[in-house]
Amino acid sequence: MSREISALQRARLGYQPKLPKALRTTRTKVELGAPTEPATDREKIKELFPNTYGQPLAAIVEGEGGPVVAPLNVGVVLSGGQAPGGHNVIAGLFDALKSANEESRLFGFLKGPGGVIKGQYKELTAELIDEYRNTGGFDMIMSGRDKIEKPEHLAACKKNFAEMDLDGLVVIGGDDSNTNAAVLAEYLLAEGSKTVIIGAPKTIDGDMKNGRIEASFGFDTACKTYSELIGNICRDATSAVKYWHFIRLMGRAASHVALECALQTQPNITLISEEIHTKGITLEEIVNYIADVVHRRSQAGKNYGVLVVPEGLPEFIPDIKAMIDELSSILGRDEEYIQRLGVHSERVQYLSGHLSERSARVYSCLPQDIQEVLLRRDSHGNVPLSQVETERLLMDLVSNRIRQMKSRGKTNARFSPLGHFFGYEGRSAMPTNFDANYCYSLGFAAVQLIRARLTGYTVNVQNLTKPSNEWIAGGTPVTMMLNMEVRKGKAVPVIRKALVDLEDAPFKKFAENRERWALNDEYVFPGPIQYFGPPEISDAPTKTLALEKDEAIVPEAELVGRSS
Amino acid sequence: MSREISALQRARLGYQPKLPKALRTTRTKVELGAPTEPATDREKIKELFPNTYGQPLAAIVEGEGGPVVAPLNVGVVLSGGQAPGGHNVIAGLFDALKSANEESRLFGFLKGPGGVIKGQYKELTAELIDEYRNTGGFDMIMSGRDKIEKPEHLAACKKNFAEMDLDGLVVIGGDDSNTNAAVLAEYLLAEGSKTVIIGAPKTIDGDMKNGRIEASFGFDTACKTYSELIGNICRDATSAVKYWHFIRLMGRAASHVALECALQTQPNITLISEEIHTKGITLEEIVNYIADVVHRRSQAGKNYGVLVVPEGLPEFIPDIKAMIDELSSILGRDEEYIQRLGVHSERVQYLSGHLSERSARVYSCLPQDIQEVLLRRDSHGNVPLSQVETERLLMDLVSNRIRQMKSRGKTNARFSPLGHFFGYEGRSAMPTNFDANYCYSLGFAAVQLIRARLTGYTVNVQNLTKPSNEWIAGGTPVTMMLNMEVRKGKAVPVIRKALVDLEDAPFKKFAENRERWALNDEYVFPGPIQYFGPPEISDAPTKTLALEKDEAIVPEAELVGRSS
Repeated sequence: MSREISALQRARLGYQPKLPKALRTTRTKVELGAPTEPATDREKIKELFPNTYGQPLAAIVEGEGGPVVAPLNVGVVLSGGQAPGGHNVIAGLFDALKSANEESRLFGFLKGPGGVIKGQYKELTAELIDEYRNTGGFDMIMSGRDKIEKPEHLAACKKNFAEMDLDGLVVIGGDDSNTNAAVLAEYLLAEGSKTVIIGAPKTIDGDMKNGRIEASFGFDTACKTYSELIGNICRDATSAVKYWHFIRLMGRAASHVALECALQTQPNITLISEEIHTKGITLEEIVNYIADVVHRRSQAGKNYGVLVVPEGLPEFIPDIKAMIDELSSILGRDEEYIQRLGVHSERVQYLSGHLSERSARVYSCLPQDIQEVLLRRDSHGNVPLSQVETERLLMDLVSNRIRQMKSRGKTNARFSPLGHFFGYEGRSAMPTNFDANYCYSLGFAAVQLIRARLTGYTVNVQNLTKPSNEWIAGGTPVTMMLNMEVRKGKAVPVIRKALVDLEDAPFKKFAENRERWALNDEYVFPGPIQYFGPPEISDAPTKTLALEKDEAIVPEAELVGRSS
Repeated sequence: MSREISALQRARLGYQPKLPKALRTTRTKVELGAPTEPATDREKIKELFPNTYGQPLAAIVEGEGGPVVAPLNVGVVLSGGQAPGGHNVIAGLFDALKSANEESRLFGFLKGPGGVIKGQYKELTAELIDEYRNTGGFDMIMSGRDKIEKPEHLAACKKNFAEMDLDGLVVIGGDDSNTNAAVLAEYLLAEGSKTVIIGAPKTIDGDMKNGRIEASFGFDTACKTYSELIGNICRDATSAVKYWHFIRLMGRAASHVALECALQTQPNITLISEEIHTKGITLEEIVNYIADVVHRRSQAGKNYGVLVVPEGLPEFIPDIKAMIDELSSILGRDEEYIQRLGVHSERVQYLSGHLSERSARVYSCLPQDIQEVLLRRDSHGNVPLSQVETERLLMDLVSNRIRQMKSRGKTNARFSPLGHFFGYEGRSAMPTNFDANYCYSLGFAAVQLIRARLTGYTVNVQNLTKPSNEWIAGGTPVTMMLNMEVRKGKAVPVIRKALVDLEDAPFKKFAENRERWALNDEYVFPGPIQYFGPPEISDAPTKTLALEKDEAIVPEAELVGRSS
């Protein structure tokens, strides 16, 4: 930590996160419901998880009797990319453990799952925890992207946990990490280890959610940080009246971040990968749509605008997808030969000869630097589509389209695009009051699940659009959220990613308004995240959550409904 | 305006900005001090401004007697780039006018000084003003970059003002706009026009300041917005521990924004154009310094870091400046021939033959795309150095340097740089409480100067590090701030830009700490701008202002001292 801290840091270190009513006492008990089943692939998942399949839902309620006397040894690990609130989950674990028994101890595994496998950890003391209360980032114990999946990994974990006399491990991560947590839980149970495994739902992409898990933590803070910036840029656009801002946001698979920011700021154009994929909208159609909005706005005297796009868009455009598949096989065959072709134009010519007509057309319309990027396969032998800066791709293609329209006298729009990417600015931001309270509650609840000796569960807190004292904490068996998917040619159990559902309220609200937002300037300016002041400003949930909760409550049964 | 507004927008529309004590009553009077003189070029400036030269300083104090009865017609114009608080100056003008006399009217000239020349304006009604209170952006009446300087412009203004029966015009702009305001004031006075001209100090670059003008408005909000993002990126850097973030900030001439953000967040490296210029530090020395810090941090196991650089840096690097001058003359002679050279390498070879050895070396070490950019002169015949993305230039050069060091076994640093540019994100942000109060006070005070029939003044509010009721409002004759400078080969009167002074407290504090900041992680996380909560969080001035005010008060005499 830096020796000098800001006035806001000081205030936030002293902020006491709010807890659901049932967690405000150490006299809690865990109530178990009926056995559960996944929505699909039941036989296969039952076969893979004989010991943890079909476990009941868990609800944490106020109980009688005194607090547990026996001290607990608990470990915690951060997995994957930073999300605001990670330190609050850890603080919640710490306070819950100590409030139940001062002798309890919390250990932080270092640099992600790799630290669990290697048995690298440090004890988290009150002094250390106090340094990180309500702070952003994962720097307290750091994170990593290793996976605990190979047999030797599992064995190493069992050994380390035994040496540490660990009662439980809390894995803070996304869908994959929670899946791996379930695999580890199943293994340890089968091996007769006493260590239980609890997952916590983290990802700013917001794609780990269902009827039980209303939101993954970090999404609230990240989206509000990006929305502040997008709103500021919208205000600048209406003041400068001469630039089109193309803003790329995080979201490789799901477009929840882009959709939430669109609902918060109402930019002129927002592209949603899921819609483009579902409707099979081509690159040319996308470019024409944008160019048409640019043209229609210019006719209204508005040669400016704001466009928001998720970074992962290209992978969801059917003709790009097809072209990439063809490129992969051509490069798999002729990569060396193509690289040896000295001049760019020769490479393009060669490919045009070997790509299908449609893919050749798509490839030829790409900017030269992107054409080159797509000719070098990455270490996994894949064409590195993810290296394409989506906003620049669109800026170039739309510029060309507008030039074309001008030459044909079809428009006189002045089009000056500017590109932006917002990612790192939000991943490690100070958690909002919402994320601070939510994450602290998740940590607190996880300890109750460990006390109840539950394993293979993801901790959840529901009723999130209500005041925090009305929040309801519990646990959801991971097996219940699993389905079988093919990864690297192999069918594996995974928690299905919750993509943007075109039938859900958030997308519907966007779709109903986008034509108006495109032509009028109906920008909304959320401003910076507030930690003080009126609760409707400082404690409001995301628009996504509010709109989803307005819908009829999703039956527990169709847990994966949102993404099915 | 958008029909839907955010909760924070609603709260800010209702925020009542605070005023200095003397402005809280309509019973104010303007006290005039002794005649003033500029620090230099007195004879020349006296000759150019015979009617407005030597005017006294003005102080606005509580007076006796009733408010002025006669209604006033006042115009206002926004000049140059957006700065948070512009709408608050206008709201201050409006409220001050109406509080003195309900019959008074305020007219907003549209799209900048061009609107004044063309006589394009709209009356600003209570309804319109209320829509924009405490909002960012300049979208209420928009801005422009035209200049009122040619004789026909001045004549057009006189004619328009007469037709509007305008008592005064408030020009909201930077050093150039305030200079032009003085020229217009001098002209109108000589012509016997009744319209007085008052300037208001605006620029987020923070380069219009002196002993009387403690800060230009917008600087506070913009720097705090950028500092939020830089702090978030610092936190992400210590969490991900694998990226070096190179962050470009606004500041073509002055580096105040970069310096303020450095004091707010304490990144590992901050480059200050004024220091590089003053000390004649070469591009190679800059690259070596950065590479050395990268190396030393990597030895401490830190393959990450944060660097902050003002966009205008390249123009202050002596060997780049020299190279650009040589390039200009070569291109002036052989541009067509060079463009006709088909292959890039031939162009480089040709230039190497014609540039001095030193410049050839500098040019040859530049990335190819930048080499190409510098071969096309802009419409003014200048080599477009401003098109070079400073952070990318440094990223490329440092990458090469590190590769070189590795090949010589001089380092084993892993260097993965990421570039960012923050500009538009802050120019139109919602003004902080400080800027909201400061700008509203400037507008309120400007009306008092107009009531006193003063012309050729810049309105100022001092004592800004004290609570707003202790602020002191007044007016400073523009002629007092002028000096003669050569622009486009011609000596003209201008307000000297206040550049970062290496002898002033803000730079000294940075210089004393930078070695520690470079190697340790002493990042500070300011977090987002707060409008509510403890005043030390929501109302604090910039570090720059606080440090400058801690110094002995600058004698009025050396008004341009900070930049001399």
